[in-house]
Amino acid sequence: MLEKKQEGKAVSQEIRTDLALEMRERFTDDNVEVKGVILDEEFREDGKIRISTVVIRDKQGAEAMRKPEGTYITVEAAELFAGGETEQRQAGMEIGRQLKRLCGQKKIKKLLVAGLGNREVTPDSLGPLVIDHLLITRHLVREYGEGFLQRQLQKELDAEVEVSAVAPGVMAQTGMEALEILRGIVRETKPDLVLVVDALAARSVERLNRTVQLTDTGICPGAGIGNNRQAINRESLGCTVIALGVPTVVDAVTIVMDSMETFLKTQGYTGREIGIFLSGIETLRSVDTMFVTPKSIDEEIRDMGRTISEAVNYCFFGI
Amino acid sequence: MLEKKQEGKAVSQEIRTDLALEMRERFTDDNVEVKGVILDEEFREDGKIRISTVVIRDKQGAEAMRKPEGTYITVEAAELFAGGETEQRQAGMEIGRQLKRLCGQKKIKKLLVAGLGNREVTPDSLGPLVIDHLLITRHLVREYGEGFLQRQLQKELDAEVEVSAVAPGVMAQTGMEALEILRGIVRETKPDLVLVVDALAARSVERLNRTVQLTDTGICPGAGIGNNRQAINRESLGCTVIALGVPTVVDAVTIVMDSMETFLKTQGYTGREIGIFLSGIETLRSVDTMFVTPKSIDEEIRDMGRTISEAVNYCFFGI
Amino acid sequence: MLEKKQEGKAVSQEIRTDLALEMRERFTDDNVEVKGVILDEEFREDGKIRISTVVIRDKQGAEAMRKPEGTYITVEAAELFAGGETEQRQAGMEIGRQLKRLCGQKKIKKLLVAGLGNREVTPDSLGPLVIDHLLITRHLVREYGEGFLQRQLQKELDAEVEVSAVAPGVMAQTGMEALEILRGIVRETKPDLVLVVDALAARSVERLNRTVQLTDTGICPGAGIGNNRQAINRESLGCTVIALGVPTVVDAVTIVMDSMETFLKTQGYTGREIGIFLSGIETLRSVDTMFVTPKSIDEEIRDMGRTISEAVNYCFFGI
Amino acid sequence: MLEKKQEGKAVSQEIRTDLALEMRERFTDDNVEVKGVILDEEFREDGKIRISTVVIRDKQGAEAMRKPEGTYITVEAAELFAGGETEQRQAGMEIGRQLKRLCGQKKIKKLLVAGLGNREVTPDSLGPLVIDHLLITRHLVREYGEGFLQRQLQKELDAEVEVSAVAPGVMAQTGMEALEILRGIVRETKPDLVLVVDALAARSVERLNRTVQLTDTGICPGAGIGNNRQAINRESLGCTVIALGVPTVVDAVTIVMDSMETFLKTQGYTGREIGIFLSGIETLRSVDTMFVTPKSIDEEIRDMGRTISEAVNYCFFGI
Repeated sequence: MLEKKQEGKAVSQEIRTDLALEMRERFTDDNVEVKGVILDEEFREDGKIRISTVVIRDKQGAEAMRKPEGTYITVEAAELFAGGETEQRQAGMEIGRQLKRLCGQKKIKKLLVAGLGNREVTPDSLGPLVIDHLLITRHLVREYGEGFLQRQLQKELDAEVEVSAVAPGVMAQTGMEALEILRGIVRETKPDLVLVVDALAARSVERLNRTVQLTDTGICPGAGIGNNRQAINRESLGCTVIALGVPTVVDAVTIVMDSMETFLKTQGYTGREIGIFLSGIETLRSVDTMFVTPKSIDEEIRDMGRTISEAVNYCFFGI
Repeated sequence: MLEKKQEGKAVSQEIRTDLALEMRERFTDDNVEVKGVILDEEFREDGKIRISTVVIRDKQGAEAMRKPEGTYITVEAAELFAGGETEQRQAGMEIGRQLKRLCGQKKIKKLLVAGLGNREVTPDSLGPLVIDHLLITRHLVREYGEGFLQRQLQKELDAEVEVSAVAPGVMAQTGMEALEILRGIVRETKPDLVLVVDALAARSVERLNRTVQLTDTGICPGAGIGNNRQAINRESLGCTVIALGVPTVVDAVTIVMDSMETFLKTQGYTGREIGIFLSGIETLRSVDTMFVTPKSIDEEIRDMGRTISEAVNYCFFGI
Repeated sequence: MLEKKQEGKAVSQEIRTDLALEMRERFTDDNVEVKGVILDEEFREDGKIRISTVVIRDKQGAEAMRKPEGTYITVEAAELFAGGETEQRQAGMEIGRQLKRLCGQKKIKKLLVAGLGNREVTPDSLGPLVIDHLLITRHLVREYGEGFLQRQLQKELDAEVEVSAVAPGVMAQTGMEALEILRGIVRETKPDLVLVVDALAARSVERLNRTVQLTDTGICPGAGIGNNRQAINRESLGCTVIALGVPTVVDAVTIVMDSMETFLKTQGYTGREIGIFLSGIETLRSVDTMFVTPKSIDEEIRDMGRTISEAVNYCFFGI
Repeated sequence: MLEKKQEGKAVSQEIRTDLALEMRERFTDDNVEVKGVILDEEFREDGKIRISTVVIRDKQGAEAMRKPEGTYITVEAAELFAGGETEQRQAGMEIGRQLKRLCGQKKIKKLLVAGLGNREVTPDSLGPLVIDHLLITRHLVREYGEGFLQRQLQKELDAEVEVSAVAPGVMAQTGMEALEILRGIVRETKPDLVLVVDALAARSVERLNRTVQLTDTGICPGAGIGNNRQAINRESLGCTVIALGVPTVVDAVTIVMDSMETFLKTQGYTGREIGIFLSGIETLRSVDTMFVTPKSIDEEIRDMGRTISEAVNYCFFGI
């Protein structure tokens, strides 16, 4: 969820990103070694899809990365997402495969998909949009019994997965934390796995609507842009949680600061000097409630929503 | 929720209505006395608002009316709802007053409003639309503490009511019963009162978007058009439940049968003969998945959604 | 356009339908021969698609049918439209073929598609929805020149058709007749053919969202439900006009009257007696501003909009 | 209209803004005197509304400002637009007064409002949204004659203004220039005045959704962000044209460059040195298809659309 920052807070010079990969790159840029963090990457589809896996193995790594321990898989596929239906389908299948990999050996029989975010705010509407295109099966399996889905889909299935879904809305609309709503539903319906889908903030504009992050650590809604919502994870929900996020905005402050920093480095300034300069920029105050988004965000978010639905359908039903 | 009927079911000749008042009128038409049912009516605003109260007092009344025991208040205000902003505001205030009356002595501190129905199907979108315009306060009261609302609203308040709201969606979208979602949220957030808002089916087209029914018996979503969802009431949720419903459709079968019946009566046929005739009409089969709705439903449902939001805001905050 | 009837008008007992085929059937029902009207039908796709061609050849036929002289092609494909994506694609291709047939020998280089109706009123939103999915090429052909489309579509094309499109809105939104807006645009951009897409009223609920009517006589918006808008045709626009319409509603009055009539016939009443009975029915007055529409209209209209876009794309670009 | 820039174009270091006031301020910043340009400002509502009038008097001024000769009135009202309904109403009335001032002595009997932009792209949807809330009267005056509006509005009116409106869509949707569509409609309906409403690009984020520019020079859609659409003005339409624009985005490039420039100035660099630095920044290339917009743009654009509708209604009907 891309909620507004609380007013009155000072503008931070910290990098704001929800992507573990971008946190990791940050250290690479600075030539710093990060203990407790493993990075691995491979390429698919003639190099058009790049899959990076960041594993944060221990507390030291978690502190350095300012993210919880766990596995973060990033699927980047600029050409595919920008392409036509065939290319998007290819990207969707790869995301589905990575989702399956993250599920591991665990047999999923009951899946709850939670589409976080605000349907009325375009770059924050990804979660609700994904819900709209999912194959929802829980009520069918429960009404028509085992074998119904196999017959309907005319496919051999490993399991007749009961898929349910909810778009809990944002706190300004409901007065409740997304966590509270999900915890209630989980207690009532007892899924094996909760898949939380959300829009994220990134550092790099090139990644917007071109990158998907999958992680088994859950999610802390709004964390990437400075909010502190309660985390949605195994501890808080009491069942396995996988978070799937797509960066749809860059904070306007981040854009300005990255540009400045790049420039100052070319001028030979040291990191410390740069920090002092940046902290004095007045303009940042005014852009602090702004975000940067592609001009074609409305179209891109619809495409991405459908691609992710297809990824989930592919992962659990092979369709 | 105005869900589709299950296919294959025979067309029933029973009257289909969610309004207790229309069930009651049915008996009046037939000159039948109904034991265990009390009817009372009064007029407001120079007769422009009619308030009918039906109390089903015992099991015998419940059986005759095919509705649970309890109080059903109907606010009819054809001119007001059709009118401009001032008239709609007047109607909203009256609904707010009747809602307060139904709450009785009970002091409400924590209110959950549940907007049932499908946002994507116009005549079924009333519940979600009401949610959009409510004053949501739970997160504010919890963050800023006692007295915050009074200062914000610049009003003396009886209580700083924590209002939360949710639009749980319909089963085809979520795979879950609305009841399951609500029960989970109620357990988690423990409201004193759940107000369930829903679109209803009526028997008379004159009542569409002109009538509001308030009842302390809860709701059985889809019951009026032949579905059997699990009831949402005190027993199933474990807290006080008030249902607020507005008829937005008439079943197409109802329209045809009512017209026929009226006609046959004028021709001197007996009730029994009429029943036999009606059961033989072929046309009914084809209209069984159809509903009748005003040509201006899109506009009317938006206005009605706002009016009901204002009624709730007025009831709990006097604004 | 499915506009509201003017108030104060008497309820007519005339059949209200925009479909020439239904007018023709009316006579068949009554065993009346209609001079000047030719009816022909054939079946496709194993009988799943029925194509009826009504030709009104002269003034006498036009008077009997209360429709202008010309050709009316009706494509009925209940199973196909209700089916999955493959079936809908099949239906779309057949509509595209019939559209080509109606264009005849005439070589179309510049096409203007006009999507009539009100985007905000679900059953009237077909025209605007069709526009949303069309392949719009006029600006591309004009900017990148001959051969651009062939290269883009990787297809041999008969012609690089310049497709433009407009959704002129309804008079309550614009203050202008659709005809005025279209006439202005036609004078400015000089298309060879104007294809007018609109939602229609039918007599039979079975035909709703299952039938497409194509005609070279143009259209008289709202005529089917009793409005008298200015006709959009060759005379008024000054270029060839083809109208493509889909019935999305049945007038509530029509449903009731058809049911009654069927019933009374089975009781042995004569046509004259039936007419007298029907004219006395009070209920009709109250349903006169109502229409009957399938409960799943929102979904059906989206599917139909996409199917018709594909028909147009197929007709002019073979894709 | 906020259309995408043509690809392949070099990133310009020129300031991109549609606001004459911001062009003028640019010179003030640089302490440059601009011949042929007059600037005047006054305050209203206890200083909460600032009204600036820029008059470009001759060719020299037009070249310096890179805008056509004419009058540009800017209404800035940060507090009011951000406020509640009362404040927005106040702002709307002031915009209405300035619109009347720009109309001058000319008696308007027939007004066409053109809402430019893409309804599907949030920050570009202002024009279509304004159309939705306007009082449309042309069809009423023509059907019910002189005096009808006076009776309906229960107001003494200077004139029964015939208001019509159209949202012509963007070229990617229609294949036609907005100018072509409007020229056709103007020839057909012969209005005295065309009021063109459009979303603009600004230089300063503080002005987004807080500023309205009114000008008698017409509009060149997309000019502020580097597109070259054909101008919509008296010459091209053949009648008086007033353009009303609201900045809803800042180009991402502009944000970065302004921040850098401010910073470099504080470091004592000269304008020439700054220019050289800025031209070498690589980051700009990647943000060139991005825009910056407030996080609450969806809500703000709805409020602004309603405020401008009210301004137009107030100007012509005093309501």
